[in-house]
Order: sequence, then C-alpha cells, then structure tokens
Amino acid sequence: MFFGSDNTSPVHPKIMQALAKANEGYVSSYGADPIMEQVRDQVRNLFQAPDAAVYLVATGSAANALALATYCPPWGAVYCHKSSHIEVDECGAPEFYAGGAKLITIDGDHGKMRPEDLRKALEPLAHGDVHTVQPGIVSITNVTEMGTVYAPDEIAALCAIARDFGIPCHMDGARFANALQATGATPAKMTWKSGIDILSFGGTKNGLMAVEAVVIFDPAKAWEFELRRKRGGHLFSKHRYLSAQMNAYLQDELWLALAQHSNAMGSKLSKKISALADSTILHPTDANVVFANLPRAVHRKAQDAGAVYSLVPFYASLDGPGGELLPARLVCSWSTTDEDIDQLIDTFKI
Amino acid sequence: MFFGSDNTSPVHPKIMQALAKANEGYVSSYGADPIMEQVRDQVRNLFQAPDAAVYLVATGSAANALALATYCPPWGAVYCHKSSHIEVDECGAPEFYAGGAKLITIDGDHGKMRPEDLRKALEPLAHGDVHTVQPGIVSITNVTEMGTVYAPDEIAALCAIARDFGIPCHMDGARFANALQATGATPAKMTWKSGIDILSFGGTKNGLMAVEAVVIFDPAKAWEFELRRKRGGHLFSKHRYLSAQMNAYLQDELWLALAQHSNAMGSKLSKKISALADSTILHPTDANVVFANLPRAVHRKAQDAGAVYSLVPFYASLDGPGGELLPARLVCSWSTTDEDIDQLIDTFKI
Amino acid sequence: MFFGSDNTSPVHPKIMQALAKANEGYVSSYGADPIMEQVRDQVRNLFQAPDAAVYLVATGSAANALALATYCPPWGAVYCHKSSHIEVDECGAPEFYAGGAKLITIDGDHGKMRPEDLRKALEPLAHGDVHTVQPGIVSITNVTEMGTVYAPDEIAALCAIARDFGIPCHMDGARFANALQATGATPAKMTWKSGIDILSFGGTKNGLMAVEAVVIFDPAKAWEFELRRKRGGHLFSKHRYLSAQMNAYLQDELWLALAQHSNAMGSKLSKKISALADSTILHPTDANVVFANLPRAVHRKAQDAGAVYSLVPFYASLDGPGGELLPARLVCSWSTTDEDIDQLIDTFKI
Amino acid sequence: MFFGSDNTSPVHPKIMQALAKANEGYVSSYGADPIMEQVRDQVRNLFQAPDAAVYLVATGSAANALALATYCPPWGAVYCHKSSHIEVDECGAPEFYAGGAKLITIDGDHGKMRPEDLRKALEPLAHGDVHTVQPGIVSITNVTEMGTVYAPDEIAALCAIARDFGIPCHMDGARFANALQATGATPAKMTWKSGIDILSFGGTKNGLMAVEAVVIFDPAKAWEFELRRKRGGHLFSKHRYLSAQMNAYLQDELWLALAQHSNAMGSKLSKKISALADSTILHPTDANVVFANLPRAVHRKAQDAGAVYSLVPFYASLDGPGGELLPARLVCSWSTTDEDIDQLIDTFKI
Repeated sequence: MFFGSDNTSPVHPKIMQALAKANEGYVSSYGADPIMEQVRDQVRNLFQAPDAAVYLVATGSAANALALATYCPPWGAVYCHKSSHIEVDECGAPEFYAGGAKLITIDGDHGKMRPEDLRKALEPLAHGDVHTVQPGIVSITNVTEMGTVYAPDEIAALCAIARDFGIPCHMDGARFANALQATGATPAKMTWKSGIDILSFGGTKNGLMAVEAVVIFDPAKAWEFELRRKRGGHLFSKHRYLSAQMNAYLQDELWLALAQHSNAMGSKLSKKISALADSTILHPTDANVVFANLPRAVHRKAQDAGAVYSLVPFYASLDGPGGELLPARLVCSWSTTDEDIDQLIDTFKI
Repeated sequence: MFFGSDNTSPVHPKIMQALAKANEGYVSSYGADPIMEQVRDQVRNLFQAPDAAVYLVATGSAANALALATYCPPWGAVYCHKSSHIEVDECGAPEFYAGGAKLITIDGDHGKMRPEDLRKALEPLAHGDVHTVQPGIVSITNVTEMGTVYAPDEIAALCAIARDFGIPCHMDGARFANALQATGATPAKMTWKSGIDILSFGGTKNGLMAVEAVVIFDPAKAWEFELRRKRGGHLFSKHRYLSAQMNAYLQDELWLALAQHSNAMGSKLSKKISALADSTILHPTDANVVFANLPRAVHRKAQDAGAVYSLVPFYASLDGPGGELLPARLVCSWSTTDEDIDQLIDTFKI
Repeated sequence: MFFGSDNTSPVHPKIMQALAKANEGYVSSYGADPIMEQVRDQVRNLFQAPDAAVYLVATGSAANALALATYCPPWGAVYCHKSSHIEVDECGAPEFYAGGAKLITIDGDHGKMRPEDLRKALEPLAHGDVHTVQPGIVSITNVTEMGTVYAPDEIAALCAIARDFGIPCHMDGARFANALQATGATPAKMTWKSGIDILSFGGTKNGLMAVEAVVIFDPAKAWEFELRRKRGGHLFSKHRYLSAQMNAYLQDELWLALAQHSNAMGSKLSKKISALADSTILHPTDANVVFANLPRAVHRKAQDAGAVYSLVPFYASLDGPGGELLPARLVCSWSTTDEDIDQLIDTFKI
Repeated sequence: MFFGSDNTSPVHPKIMQALAKANEGYVSSYGADPIMEQVRDQVRNLFQAPDAAVYLVATGSAANALALATYCPPWGAVYCHKSSHIEVDECGAPEFYAGGAKLITIDGDHGKMRPEDLRKALEPLAHGDVHTVQPGIVSITNVTEMGTVYAPDEIAALCAIARDFGIPCHMDGARFANALQATGATPAKMTWKSGIDILSFGGTKNGLMAVEAVVIFDPAKAWEFELRRKRGGHLFSKHRYLSAQMNAYLQDELWLALAQHSNAMGSKLSKKISALADSTILHPTDANVVFANLPRAVHRKAQDAGAVYSLVPFYASLDGPGGELLPARLVCSWSTTDEDIDQLIDTFKI
C-alpha cells in the first residue's frame, strides 16, 4: 500500500531492458550518443516540432530551473501557482539558476491559476519601471500539484495573457503524460500550439529511473540551454543511459500506456474514497493524484496497517492540530494495482 | 580501439545486476532508501571516518562544484592546477555554485602543483585586504589531468600550506580508485589523514553508470551540502538507483579491482608506445591515462584504422599547425583489453 | 508644492558645510579617514553599543541588500511585509546580493506585520526539510511604507518570534529618525534591545546627500559585511565625504531635529486633509508620510496648480480606472514649510 | 607629500561650487533631474555619439562590474591584463555582477596586453565547446595599472581581435582623461572608433567627489544596464548631486585641464627620480602614475620625513624580503604641486 509518491515506485521492466541493451561497447559521451539522435527525432515527431531542441537531464528540479533560467533574466518575475513545485519543493533552485529571480505566486482553486488572476498579478510590474523586477515568464504545472489538469484551452488562455505582457511560458510537465491522457490532447496542442515556449517533459515519475526531457520549441535558445546545463553539472558523461530510457519510454507509446494506467488507478481510488462515509475528495481527480479528507481514526487505522501516504501539509501529524478530518495526498503510479487500491480502501473502512 | 575517455566505456555487469536487484517494490525517495544507509556505512568504514557525511550525485562536475561551494565563500579564491577539470572542463560550474568565486591557477609539471608554487600563489591574498578576493580553498586533482598521481605525502605537503593560510582542501577524485591503486595508499591516508576536508569520490569513470560520492569529513558541513545539492537540482527522487550502484561498486573491492585493471592497461600501453620509434611519453603514466607524442603519419594511420582518442588540445587537427609530432591523450578503462592495446599499437606501427 | 518623496528635497546646509570642511588636503581613502573614526564612536554611543560595527554606503538599497545577504544564506527566506521596499522597490537587489534568496511576504494593515501572521508564515519552512528554502531572516521596515510606525514593543514581539525559529532580524530604517521621533524610543530600544541584529540607518531621506549607515550589533559579522560591500562596488574611495555627512548629521542632534520637523509637517498635513470634505486619511499618520483618498477633481485641480505627489499605485492615472476617490501618497521632508502645506491644502479645496 | 593615490586628493573647488548650486529646491530623483539631461548631451557631444546611453554611478568598481555584466554572460570569460583593477582590486565584483564569469588574465610588459597574446588566450575557448566557458568580453584599462597609456591604434588592434572572436570590448577608463591627454586622441577615437563598446569613464580620481560615467555606445543595451544598476543598489535617489559633478567636470574642459596637470606632475616626478643616483623608473611614465625602484635607505628617509606612497606590492615592507632596491608607486593628482614634488625629491636625496 504505497501511495506516498509516484517516485517511490520502481522502474518499468522495459526501461531496465533498454538500459541493459544500451550497455554494450564504447559510445561517445556527453550527449553525442546515437540513441540521443533517435530520441531527438522521437520527441520532434511527437510534438510535430521539427526544429525543437531536445535535452535530457536527470531530475525535475534541474529541468525546471534550467528552463526558467534560460528564459527569465535575473531581474525577472516568474509567475506561478502558489502550490507549484518550483515555489514550494525545490529549495530555491529557480532563484539560484536564474541569478536571483523572484517567484510571484498566484492562488487559485485546485492548483490552477485563473487567467484574470494572472493578468492582475502581471499588471503591477508591466510599466517598465526600473525600481521593480520585470515580468519574466509564466510557469504552468500540468498535472497541477492538486492533481487537476489544465485543458489545452486553459493553457492557451494563460499563455495569451503572457503574450499580452510580452513574456514566454514554461510548462512543468513532471506528469505530462498523465495530463495528456486526462485530456486526450496531443503533445503539440498541450504545448506550443497553445503558447508554451519550453517544456519540462517528465519521465521519472512515470516509470523511468531518472530522466526528464527539456523541449525548447525555439531552437535559438538551445545553445544557452546547453551551456547552462553543463555549468549546472547536469550534462551526463555516460549520456547514453539517459537516452536509452527516454528512447524506450517513447517507443510503442509506453509512456502513454503507463500514464493511462496510473490515471485509471487514481480515478478508481478517488471514487472508492468518495463512497466512504465521512470522507471527501478535495480536488477533482483528473489524473493519478488524489486529495482526500479522512477522519483521524481512519488515518490511524491505515497507518497501523502499513499504508504509506502523506498528510497535507507533509509535516502534519495525526496527533497534531486540525479538525477531526485530516487531508491526505495519495498518489498512484504505473505500478499501482487494483489489489493495492482494494487493500487500501479496506484499511480505510472502520 | 576506444581510448577517447574512460567515460565512453560501458557499465560493469555487476553494477547492472545491482540496479536490477534494486528495482523491486516501493522505496522511500530522496536518499531515504535503505541501500543508502549501507553505502554510508561502507564509505565510513573504508575511510576510517565514522562521522563522515556521505552523499551521492550523478556527475563529477556536480560533486566538485557543490563541494567547493560548501567550503569556499563567494569572495574566495580556489587554488588549483592550470590543467584541472574545475578550471578547464566544467563551463564555470565552480564559479556558478560558489556565487562568483575566482579560480587561481598554478602551473606545474605533469599536472601537479608544487608546494612552493602554491605558497607563492597564496601569499598575495593573505593580507586581509578588502580589495582582493580572499584565500578560499585548495583543490587537488588525483589522478591529475596529466595522468600522474600525487602520493599521500605530496597531498600532505599541499594541505599543510593550505592550513598555514587557514583554508581547507578539496580533492577531485574523479579517478580516486586509480590514484589509490597507483600508490597503495589507504583511502584515509590519501584524504583526511593528509589534510583533505572534502572529497569528490568518482565512480562513473570506473564502471558506474552515473554516480559520484561526496565525502565530507567534518559533518558540521553536511546540512549546508544537502541544501546546496537540492537547490542545484542534484537530489534524485529515485535515489535508490544511485545507492545501488555505489553499494555494488564498493562490495568485494570491485572498485579497486577495476582501477587496478585500467591502471595495468595504462601501464602496458605506455610502455608499448615508448618502445615505438619516433614516439615519446609526455608524462609519467602513473595510472590509466597516457599522454604521448606521435608522428602525424602515425596518427593518420590510426585514425584511418578507426582508433578513437583525442589530440591535445582537443581541438587540434592532423592538418593543423604544430610540429611533425602531435601530442595525444589515450585513456584506458575497466573494459580495455590486452587485445585492444595490441591492436592500437599495431596501427601505430608504420 | 513638492510632496513626491523626501528624496526630492535638497541637502541640509549644515551637511553642505561639513562637506566643504572635509574638502581639505589629502586623506586616506576607503574608510580609513579620521572622520569615520568619529562617526563610529558617534553611532556606538548613540546606540549604547560599544562593539557595534558601523559602515557607510550611499543608497538604501545597498544598505538593505548587503545587510540581508550578510545574515541570510542563498537558500534562506526573508520574511517581510508585502509593501516593503525590499520586496517592491529594489528590482530584486536582496535576491541578487543574497545569491537567490526568496522573499516571503506577509500582509497586514497599515504596512505592519502582525506577530501571529509572521509566526504562521514561518511555520511551513521550519521543519528542516531539504525540499524547501529555510527560514532566513525577518526584515522590519520602520517607518513602514504606509507611514505608520512600530513601537519598540511591537518590534520586540516580532523579533521574539524570529528568535523562536532561530533566525535574526533586520530593520530597514530608511526613515529611522522619524520612527524614533514618533515613538520617543531610544535608538537602542528601537533596535538591539528589542532584538534587531542589523540596521539600515537612513540619512539620505532626512537631509543628507547620499549616506546610509549599516549598524551590525554583533561584530563577528563585520568582516563579511566589508567584503560584501567592496564586492558590491559600494566601498567609496573618497570615503571622507560619506563620513563628513554622517558626522554632521549626528552632531547636536541635527538628525532628530530634522525628523521632528518632517513628522510635524506630516501630522499637520494629515489633519488638514482629514478636515476636507470628501477626503479621508488611509493610514495613521505616525510620521512624515501621508496616505489620503481624494476626489479625482481635487487631484486634477492640484495637479493643474503644480502640486507634485504620487497616486497609489504610482502608475495610476487621473483618467484611469478606479472610483471617484483616488488614493495618494504625500511625503513631507526636513525642508517642507508650513506655507507649502497651506498652499497645497488650498489647491485641495474646491 | 601625498603620492599614495589620486583618490586621496580633495574635490576640485569648481565641483564643490556645482554641488552647492545644485542644492536648491526640489528635484526629481533617480536620474530624472534636469542636470542629467545636460550631462547626457555633454557626453554624447564629447564622444560624437548622439545615440550613446550615459549613466552615472559613484564608484569605479560599480562602473566596471555593471559594464562587464551587461556584455558578458555568466558562462563568459573576461580577458584582461594580469595587473588590471578588475582582476586584482575589486574583491571579485565582476564575477559577482556577471553571475560567476571567469577572468582570464594576460601578462604583458608595462601593464599592456599585446595583440598576439590576446589572440593566443582567446583561441582555446573559441571552439563552441560546451565544456568550457565561452569568449565573453575583452577589458582594456587605459591608463594602465602601470601608468602606461595605450594609443588608439593599440586599442584598435586589441578590439579587432575581439571582433575576430565575436566578442565586445570594455574600457576601464578610471583615468580616461589622463589617457586622452597623454595621447592627444579624441574621446571618440579612443573608444568607439577603435572598437570599444562600453566605457567606464572615470571622474573620482580626477577631482570629483564620487562619480563615474558609463557610456554605452549601442543603446540597445541601455535598459538592461539600468536594471542592473538599480538591482546593484547603484541608482542614487538624490541623483542630481552626481549629475552636478559630472556637469561641472565636463564644462570648459575642466576635466582635461586637471588631467593635463596631473600628467605634467607625473612627468616631472619621473624625470627627477630618474636623475637620482641608484634609482630607476620601472615603466614609461605616460600619465600621472610613476613606478620607480629606490634604495631602501631612500625609502626609509622619505617615510621618516612623512612622504606617503605605496611600495609594490602594497604589502611589502622596508624590513621585508627583496633586494637593496624596492619598487614604489607614486601617484600625482590634480592637486599635486611643483612644491610637493620638489619636497619629495629632496627627501629622496641622500
């Protein structure tokens, strides 16, 4: 009963096979491996973006921070949701990589920014006044931190506002496959066709060992990104092992199948929880992440039974302050089974 | 005939097995995996340093830059050899991570700093004058970039000078195992017993996929290092796969056996080249990296035969400027075979 | 009728005389001038802080950013009011100097943080979790940006919370003299006796040409501050001219007399505005800065008559959106006269 | 007998008068003062550069660091002479402002870079290799730190090489007026006509209180410079007092007259020293800075008589190591008199 995070799950067997297959002979290092050429083509085809620059790094924080720094100057503001990973969970990596940029957060139900709130946040800095930081970039997380998903038209609405203010848009797609599966959108529609300039295209949470792609739709920024990646210590010497993972991930739509599964598990879990007495779902379960309010006694029983998941906030305690109901975050992954869910739901029943 | 770099070689089979073995079930992320506890113990035992803090990252540049930044303030000077990786090959990663520190280079034969030159370099900044950067840290590369090795007493002599000026010492041990094998020194003797405060303990070049440990002998610096690692985007979520590599690397002295082999290959290659007419070895071949001066015609013949290695500097060309002899760097790895060497030497014969 | 800012006012004649007097012969540069020795003693006596380190810089942004960077690590959070100068008006100088620190803002009526809100803001980061930035420093602005003043016990309440979380406190005292005059507190009581660790002690807004002192109550941080000042380009070669200004400012309580005058002018202006029909004062006028809601027609008449002051926000326009009443900020200075106020009030009458 | 530095000299009376004259009434702050408009025109006319952007800061380190950061990316290399102020005397300000750039130093007689050495230094990084920092900017100091002066054709030769490698050129003109007087060149010829992109145009050392202009010949970089200046804490609120100094400095060629005088004093001092027995001039005295080798006994006699100047290096001591002759740096300023020199030379005679 492991619902702590999709990053506690193992690596998919096909990825392990791809690593084994890549482990033969000598191969040029630092991204000059032949598999990376394939990956570049795969990603470009997938996104209908023949000129896109494609790079691999090993962590989501690296992908996000490098992407933001490439597009946002040190005196720029990064506009993002209050709950976003770049604001809350990266120990200031975006500020570090962007040379001291400022994150300006926007609240909004269920982890989503509303266009009007984004506009309102942008206005105070849009006057070319040297005393303030300048509008820098908008960063949109999809799947959001609350497990909800922006549809392409919602992305487009946010990007249109960014364009009004002359700034680019980043997507933190740590769970990009899940967002696609949830909406049925194409990768192109979810990104550049809606106005996204640069994408953190996650893999680790969805069955890889440690690979995220960064897709830059305007290749003019590619060289700067490469320098920033190297300078950040994120260019792998034995790069073929990153390439091999992403290569296998994109083959035969494995990535989409895995996301489809984890979304289905999320949906099932959500429905079963909402059917429980005294329990409520806190945000629409659009993908694989479920937020639910459960009675303390239920939490205690589940914990005693060995269920692993986080209270919200992560530092909350069953004996700590709060009401009778305590919110929890439960994450399904590519490896979550129907049995896992049934077993968890059983422990939730009192 | 692949002698381009030890990082073009594959991953050792035992490491692949360890990865496969680690790939079961759910495991806590971000370094809280049980294998990491073993690794911590392994490293502490190895270094006879029961209090040492041990961390894993995936690249040597990350290990070095994080280590230096943890010990050197933004206004500090990093003293290193002119040819050192941190000066030449990391696109300014140390400067980036240390908030704008200055690298001060020291020349010296065969990639080694001489104590008197280090002292001479330290003196101008040792006056507490606010107009200059301040002495920050000494960084010693072992194996050096020229393939030579510092013996423990040479390390101790450099560290003693650093101590005279009140600053700490870092070792870039991207090829640490090779340095140990070359000298017969214990890990403790090569590091903290000789005055090293923090070590980049390489694994990738010696058979791992992508893991370097950072060993901090004074645990007071551990928390700062953890924050810098996270902030740099170098804390892996599925950390168990880093742990598993290092765990297997240190088991049954695999790491030493691999280095012993690559050193032996280096030695053999060096001897065979020096026996060739018109060719000379440029630096003592203490480990697995060979520098040799070879006639242009020899290079051309070898290239035509498919031999892969670098000219020095890397951007030199067989048709470019220079004398009749052109220097080359040839690197052996854990997977280099006697046959590889024999074959290369054959192509070198005209 | 100049009420745009206290920094549009001229330099007090006594300061000009001091500059002229200092302009004789050769004097050691970079802070080694004899007048600086006097200034150091003056400030230490004033603050009953015989060990305090005292430095001069030329701008408030430099004072604040250097002070914050000296006490807050790159991965630290700076807690401040949403309207504070460091958040809104310094183009990210604190983030730049502190190597990418994050400002976390706290709202609160009339420009003041409430202790319970500060505590609530600190809690989420106080768990030693490596994924988040860490509690860094609390920065308190006195006089606040809304023209209100914290009394020493209010300062002490905020500092006590900071101490609970193990972090230091900074005071942005760009209008420090005005805050003292408003409360009758001693400099010591307003600062270190209430828990302030480092103070930006303003002079420019109160009659100087361009000098702010930074007072560090724990001299252990002095050398780091000096290096940061130099490295920031803020160490003056002809430093005697900074010293001379501060020396004259503190002599015979000139600084307090000037603040007393500007506070009295602020008070008078506030009272006269509140007596006008249709106009209201928006924040308590504790010092020399007045916020008032005035009818558009009144603004227009005043503007036509040549009155200079800012609408709020500064980019608002008489023809822009908003209600019938538009808020304005009116600042009195040491050189504001009774006649200036009477004349302005006349233009405000319709 | 004050020959320690031109920044120990006082402010010229005409500058003090200009400050007094500027000290009337209310004036817009932060560079929007009318005098700054005049200064902009003065500088543009002087440099025959009608589109140049012109900014004022208060220190030479600020001018240099902001200028370099505006043109050199964080992963760029700044090429400069080994003795240059930016390398030796600014506590890493360029590295700080440029986000961790690397200074690459070039040796050369008498403080000058030779074109062939610059070319040789540029070559290793000119290969678009992601592992190294990239060619960033060339910085030329005129007057050099050794008191010599580059003629315009020497500047042009260096800038031509920079152009060959696709990078811009900065001039550190802390003693720009002295360089012009020494060569008879026009400001335009010394800068943009020879290939300089951005100039630190010094005033402080030549009679001002604390003002340096930065002249950017391509106005496309102006806004970025403004943001960097503000963010660095170098935008003055009471900016009129910077403007007034530069305005008076440029009026009626005061700046050139002052430099002519200090150069003449330098020349006189140099000749008189070279006529002394046992003394030698170490570098051509092209401007106002004299380097001489003098016997220890002479130094001692001069010191006892109260002469103030620096030994080289600054931390050398009359009782310290070295030969019988010890080098010294003696700087003349706008206020040095014939009598000062005669008196110094008298103390030098044994």
